[in-house]
Amino acid sequence: MQTKKWVYLFNELDQAMEYVKGDWDAVRGLFGGKGANLADMHRIGVPVPPGFTVTTEACNAYLAGGGVFPDGMWDQELHALLAIETATGKIFGDPDYPLLVSCRSGAKFSMPGMMDTVLNIGLNDETAQGLIAQTSDPRFVYDAYRRLIQMFGSVVMGIEDEAFERAIDHAKRQAGVSSDTDLTAADWEALTAQFKTIFRSHTQVDFPQDPVEQLKMATEAVFKSWNGRRAVDYRNAAGIAHDLGTAVNIVTMVFGNMGEDSATGVAMTRNGATGEPKMEGDYLINAQGEDVVAGIRMTKNIDQMAAEMPDDYAELLKIAKNLERHYRDMQDMEFTIEKGKLWMLQTRDGKRTAQAAVRIAVDMQQEGLITKAEAVARVSPGQIDFFLHPQFDNQAVAQARAGNKVLARGLNVSPGAAYGVVAFDADIAELWAKEQGKQVIMVRPETKPDDVHGMLAAKGILTSRGGRTSHAALVARQFGKPAVVGVGALQIDLHKRRMSVGETVILEGDWISIDGNTGEVFIGQLQTKVPDIKDPWLIKLLAWADEIRTLGVWANADYPVDARRAREYGAQGIGLCRSEHMFFESERLPHVQKMIMATLPIERREALKSLLPFQREDFAGLFRVMDGLPVIIRLIDPPLHEFLPDLVELINELADLKLRVGHAANLAEIDQLLQQIRLKERIRSQAEQLREQNPMIGLRGVRLGIMIPELTLMQVRAIFEAACEVTREGIKVLPKVMIPLTSHVNELRVQQQALEGEAKNVMQEQGIQIEYKFGTMIELPRAAMTADQISEYAQFFSFGTNDLTQTTFGISRDDAEAGFLMAYLNKGILPDNPFATLDRDGVGELMRIAVTKGRRVRPELECGICGEHGGDPASIALCHELGLNYVSCSPFRVPIARLAAAHAALKSKKS
Amino acid sequence: MQTKKWVYLFNELDQAMEYVKGDWDAVRGLFGGKGANLADMHRIGVPVPPGFTVTTEACNAYLAGGGVFPDGMWDQELHALLAIETATGKIFGDPDYPLLVSCRSGAKFSMPGMMDTVLNIGLNDETAQGLIAQTSDPRFVYDAYRRLIQMFGSVVMGIEDEAFERAIDHAKRQAGVSSDTDLTAADWEALTAQFKTIFRSHTQVDFPQDPVEQLKMATEAVFKSWNGRRAVDYRNAAGIAHDLGTAVNIVTMVFGNMGEDSATGVAMTRNGATGEPKMEGDYLINAQGEDVVAGIRMTKNIDQMAAEMPDDYAELLKIAKNLERHYRDMQDMEFTIEKGKLWMLQTRDGKRTAQAAVRIAVDMQQEGLITKAEAVARVSPGQIDFFLHPQFDNQAVAQARAGNKVLARGLNVSPGAAYGVVAFDADIAELWAKEQGKQVIMVRPETKPDDVHGMLAAKGILTSRGGRTSHAALVARQFGKPAVVGVGALQIDLHKRRMSVGETVILEGDWISIDGNTGEVFIGQLQTKVPDIKDPWLIKLLAWADEIRTLGVWANADYPVDARRAREYGAQGIGLCRSEHMFFESERLPHVQKMIMATLPIERREALKSLLPFQREDFAGLFRVMDGLPVIIRLIDPPLHEFLPDLVELINELADLKLRVGHAANLAEIDQLLQQIRLKERIRSQAEQLREQNPMIGLRGVRLGIMIPELTLMQVRAIFEAACEVTREGIKVLPKVMIPLTSHVNELRVQQQALEGEAKNVMQEQGIQIEYKFGTMIELPRAAMTADQISEYAQFFSFGTNDLTQTTFGISRDDAEAGFLMAYLNKGILPDNPFATLDRDGVGELMRIAVTKGRRVRPELECGICGEHGGDPASIALCHELGLNYVSCSPFRVPIARLAAAHAALKSKKS
Repeated sequence: MQTKKWVYLFNELDQAMEYVKGDWDAVRGLFGGKGANLADMHRIGVPVPPGFTVTTEACNAYLAGGGVFPDGMWDQELHALLAIETATGKIFGDPDYPLLVSCRSGAKFSMPGMMDTVLNIGLNDETAQGLIAQTSDPRFVYDAYRRLIQMFGSVVMGIEDEAFERAIDHAKRQAGVSSDTDLTAADWEALTAQFKTIFRSHTQVDFPQDPVEQLKMATEAVFKSWNGRRAVDYRNAAGIAHDLGTAVNIVTMVFGNMGEDSATGVAMTRNGATGEPKMEGDYLINAQGEDVVAGIRMTKNIDQMAAEMPDDYAELLKIAKNLERHYRDMQDMEFTIEKGKLWMLQTRDGKRTAQAAVRIAVDMQQEGLITKAEAVARVSPGQIDFFLHPQFDNQAVAQARAGNKVLARGLNVSPGAAYGVVAFDADIAELWAKEQGKQVIMVRPETKPDDVHGMLAAKGILTSRGGRTSHAALVARQFGKPAVVGVGALQIDLHKRRMSVGETVILEGDWISIDGNTGEVFIGQLQTKVPDIKDPWLIKLLAWADEIRTLGVWANADYPVDARRAREYGAQGIGLCRSEHMFFESERLPHVQKMIMATLPIERREALKSLLPFQREDFAGLFRVMDGLPVIIRLIDPPLHEFLPDLVELINELADLKLRVGHAANLAEIDQLLQQIRLKERIRSQAEQLREQNPMIGLRGVRLGIMIPELTLMQVRAIFEAACEVTREGIKVLPKVMIPLTSHVNELRVQQQALEGEAKNVMQEQGIQIEYKFGTMIELPRAAMTADQISEYAQFFSFGTNDLTQTTFGISRDDAEAGFLMAYLNKGILPDNPFATLDRDGVGELMRIAVTKGRRVRPELECGICGEHGGDPASIALCHELGLNYVSCSPFRVPIARLAAAHAALKSKKS
Repeated sequence: MQTKKWVYLFNELDQAMEYVKGDWDAVRGLFGGKGANLADMHRIGVPVPPGFTVTTEACNAYLAGGGVFPDGMWDQELHALLAIETATGKIFGDPDYPLLVSCRSGAKFSMPGMMDTVLNIGLNDETAQGLIAQTSDPRFVYDAYRRLIQMFGSVVMGIEDEAFERAIDHAKRQAGVSSDTDLTAADWEALTAQFKTIFRSHTQVDFPQDPVEQLKMATEAVFKSWNGRRAVDYRNAAGIAHDLGTAVNIVTMVFGNMGEDSATGVAMTRNGATGEPKMEGDYLINAQGEDVVAGIRMTKNIDQMAAEMPDDYAELLKIAKNLERHYRDMQDMEFTIEKGKLWMLQTRDGKRTAQAAVRIAVDMQQEGLITKAEAVARVSPGQIDFFLHPQFDNQAVAQARAGNKVLARGLNVSPGAAYGVVAFDADIAELWAKEQGKQVIMVRPETKPDDVHGMLAAKGILTSRGGRTSHAALVARQFGKPAVVGVGALQIDLHKRRMSVGETVILEGDWISIDGNTGEVFIGQLQTKVPDIKDPWLIKLLAWADEIRTLGVWANADYPVDARRAREYGAQGIGLCRSEHMFFESERLPHVQKMIMATLPIERREALKSLLPFQREDFAGLFRVMDGLPVIIRLIDPPLHEFLPDLVELINELADLKLRVGHAANLAEIDQLLQQIRLKERIRSQAEQLREQNPMIGLRGVRLGIMIPELTLMQVRAIFEAACEVTREGIKVLPKVMIPLTSHVNELRVQQQALEGEAKNVMQEQGIQIEYKFGTMIELPRAAMTADQISEYAQFFSFGTNDLTQTTFGISRDDAEAGFLMAYLNKGILPDNPFATLDRDGVGELMRIAVTKGRRVRPELECGICGEHGGDPASIALCHELGLNYVSCSPFRVPIARLAAAHAALKSKKS
């Protein structure tokens, strides 16, 4: 039996493609993204140092086998090493001309900084001397050697990195220098010796001198790192499967720190913040890659390279174009120049801000690299959300600047504005955000993978160190958090839990504001506002999305101003106007309360008569804005006591008033107090009568219309009077009357017949015929189960998924979201908040039944959703799947919904 | 083409049987029950006056045709009349020897008193003279003639009967007599003339002298009466279809009022009140049938007939036996003796009390007349309910008797005891009962079909007139209402809305109590109690039901005393023990409140520790009683604030206490008040914290167990400690732990795993292995929809249909049953109260999904129901249909459920 192939040289990509039957995605699974791209770059002629990949299958076999290399793997690895030796002409462990390699993890999906790397494998006391002889650069060699011991120590043996860093700091203090680059060969030699001592003192064994032993242990360490806490946490946060495994890439070392003709850097083929089609990056001459990424030394802008290393720059630019064309996406590259020779060490799809994602997708379509559908698929709905993220109000910023409230300025690495209280570590940030509901800005000197949970919980991220490609910047961009990094002026004292810029001191818990667009940090809270979307690339992208999607996108809007915004954002109709929202306005509430408190029918009729003109004008305003588009008006829904003051407050107020009578100064005061008491007693009595144990499932919705027919008749009269009025103005009106909370078809039948009668009365009075429909909300499980009966009357269904979720789960949202529901999410009892993302198995199944049964009776039945889920991408995907006609969401979510609907259409076309 | 046969002579039954292909039920549909039985009696040799039936098809054709006799019908009717003439030797309209006939309605299902009858058709001024000549009895003839005019006037022409009765009253006053029988021939002759005048003054036409015209108009009137308001109301109340139509029976008149050798009467083949196998009835010598039924003259007991008319009595007895054997059921017969010759005018299955129904069914099985299954099917579950109806407490009756609280005594025509406020008409009775929830006793001189809606709404019925077969008695028995009739001492003044017996006056709205078992009427409210069922016939019948049913019947019981009763009544297990019910007891509540108020975990644990022994003993008690049978214990379900005082009350109390501080007399009092205030403030603060907008869908059920694991762990410890303790006593314990309010499988998984762990701990500590199961309630729509996921863990499902109905409909029961739900039922928006009878289309469909999905994963999954529907016959039938394993209901409903389950099994066997 032939042993499985666990190891592939970079030039064996064809063999791998054969193994996975030509499926590139499977190669990425097998090699990891990094390994696959290295082999692929090699194939298309990009200079890549010789190397090989140990597959993810090997990793999984190792982990499944309890930490034993699978049969033949190690032999294959040694065999591959031989091939590298042949290619480079160097020998692994050879004292004269030693081959050095790096050992890096690389999983299918990029997990920046999550996995472990060991460089310079192959160095030992002997080969170091050989390398010195060969390079005549002992400083370089000892620096390389100490890096190996340090990385091997921390990554493979689990020694805290601090131990090594302290030694370096000590050496710098002794040498009287501030930068690593100022340390001499002798310093590094001494540090190398110290590092070996640190190694032994922490591990009780000597640093392994055998290069093969080094390679073996490093390979194992990478395998094991897959199940390390950092990696698991990251995968949990990013939603990556835990059974993929990581590959191990063994690559010939090339050195950017071999003098002034050497360099190392990272570059993006386009600007990751703005999307501008121009290569962006940072590099350092005479440095190793980690120096750039760690943000320890101040990097140079890649533009400078054109002048400093013109040939290499030109080659890099050419490779960048080449890679973009090959991968049809913006690339994030790592490179090293060793003595004038450019080597590519990695390429991958580049992370980008939302703004950049949109621009890049649109530009690439226009450059002919990708199709419209691909462009649309490249931008996630969440990224659109980002366009609608708060930005600081211009005036507030101007005032802050004028008022010396600018604390400092840093790199603007992730756009958007945020304010919050300062939290100096990830745990505090998470605690305050999750358990106390605070807005938090997480502040650190720099961030590490361990900090991700805090970064996710925070509203924004601020670091005093790091660059555009620092961990903080990458993570912030990926998760759409505003971030400012590299604020050098900022002194952070983690022990004293405070930070300062000059004389200004900010304590943990104080408010600050950060602007990820400008890089400014402000003292205090700056007012934010949500911007209009005017980005031309976004407008184009959304237009393409509209071509693709089949699901309509409507908006929930109660006032003309909301309707106008919804229309601007692309809404195709109003899916929900809450007709009673206007009742709460100060000029109307007294009439509403009079109507509720009425004891005689005549009083009630009078109060309703006063409300009619208000309602009519509300609806007329909406109709004017929505000219030619449908407007669904939901008749009064909430229980009437919502229009009265809270009962417990009333009782408290009354108790207080009565106490005051006892202490009143004179008769006039007593008289006044008694008058107040009488009035409040009357309201209290009515509130007590209306009090329900469970108002959410009480006298509301259609039940109100059945018990107080005058109320909904008034509303329907207002709708149709408004429709006639606006029609006369030459505007096209398409009103749809929606009856809420139907549980039994008879409720709908009785109300609809009465209301439609009134509608006809109005149209006859006015001599105008309006195109109208009557429909109902499906927001109770029984309505869903009996949708066939209900669709005998209803001409449209609108799923009220907030209420439907409440009754399907038996969870009162108002109570639970501040209570056990949060505990459920923290404990993982519920995978998502069902009020944010539609519950597929329960609520979704009821919706499926309703759509199926409803359309069985009325094939043309229009079905939509007007719960808050209408703006949630996952829920929109489900709505598409269920065959709804449209989703209706808040005006601000309309662009997101348009894109999400397009994604859903693309996804269903694929499957 | 041959015309359809619309008319059948009584001797043409064979032709009809041929037409309906031998289906006797179809003959009953065609001829109506009365007509079918008349023809059938003729066939088996029972003496029936010659006659014929116009079919229900003719009626339906007449009504569908807008009031036109179908083709050929009238010809056939005249033809049939000829045949009768031949059989009797009399001629219709012949002045010398006239044939007189009756015209009666007769539908498939008996609708006593609902339909219309005209007697003596064929009399006119001429034939009356002929009949006088023939009978030499002018008094009889004028009485018969005026009856024809009166009935024809009221039934056919719609003249108010009062107009005729007033004339008779006036004639009696003028003659100075009190009884109709004391009026002379001259009186009746005069009255006949007056009646004709009344007829003309009301109708503007003369009373028709043409007998054929009389017959035609009477036939039409009977047809039309099918859609009269009384008939429609009755069918609605009794659940009879509206499209059956009525037949018309034309029968030769025979006269029980032709002298002392003539009589008329009604008889039951067995006692309709007790079921005793002995003929019962009433008769009157020299009277017409309506005199008996109307209860106007005091009737004689049928036993007296043995002495007064021995031959006829013997023949009647023989016919009774014969009919019972033929129809295999107790018969209710009408007969007339005309000059010594016995004629049977009607036979039908007799109405009977619940007690009688049971005894008759069992006796008949033992007499070999019917099978066990038929016996079981003969008794409705509602009749069993009746056995459990309240009876007056013996001591209360003794005291009432001793205290002169017996108002009067009447006929005990429908057993059971009831008390309520007096209502003097049907509308008031209905209004008070339905809208104000009052207990009402409806009191009338006698009842009419128009009164049925009030009788249905009342708790009991009391009349001053009427006999055992009066309308009041029949209806009361059919609908299981206690009734006392014929209380002659009772003076009812409908105008003054009061009644009196001697000096004692009772106003409308005053309380009275009636005992349908003894016929006593009491002043005020007498205490009632529910009797044990010891009736030997019932025991036998239920045993047969048990042989037939496949659905188990369990009981809901929280205490040993309930469990004992349940077991006595035949429960096969406890389907629901509400484990927290015991928390409300005075010795426990302080510990429960301490547990709730605990701010430190140690406080909570201490409080729970104090509760443990109580819970253990509660469960041990149940286990002992249920030895060998399963006991399902539901873990704590209600929200915790239910164990604290009501918040609004607390606030009011606090306000009051604070007011009192201001008016306190001295410092000691102030001090005491402040102390009370502090204590109450603490409770208030906790109650406020626990306050929920919608507690019904709040923190309760399994959510409590997840948020406060110590609480349910304590309960499970108590269950298993009790189980071990009782097992040691040699008792077989089968505990099943039920987790309430699961909405998502993860809730169940997390709780079940924790609790099962604790159960195992206890069993290990005690060294005893208990047979146990864990399961959940399915009481939320989401649980039903995801039952496949849930049954991965749950070993049994119990449908909590109260909660499931609340969430499926989105109706808060506590609020709605006192509010809009009643309006919904009154307006007919809901056909039934869904909290009383399972909603088949919504809740039922969810249950069907749950059972199907649950058993797909776990085929042996035990499914039951423990909501209040478990005791409702219609709901039990649905549960059988859904394939549930058992229903669990209150102990008092167990016998009903056993019978209902047997009915469901019989029904599904049939179909």
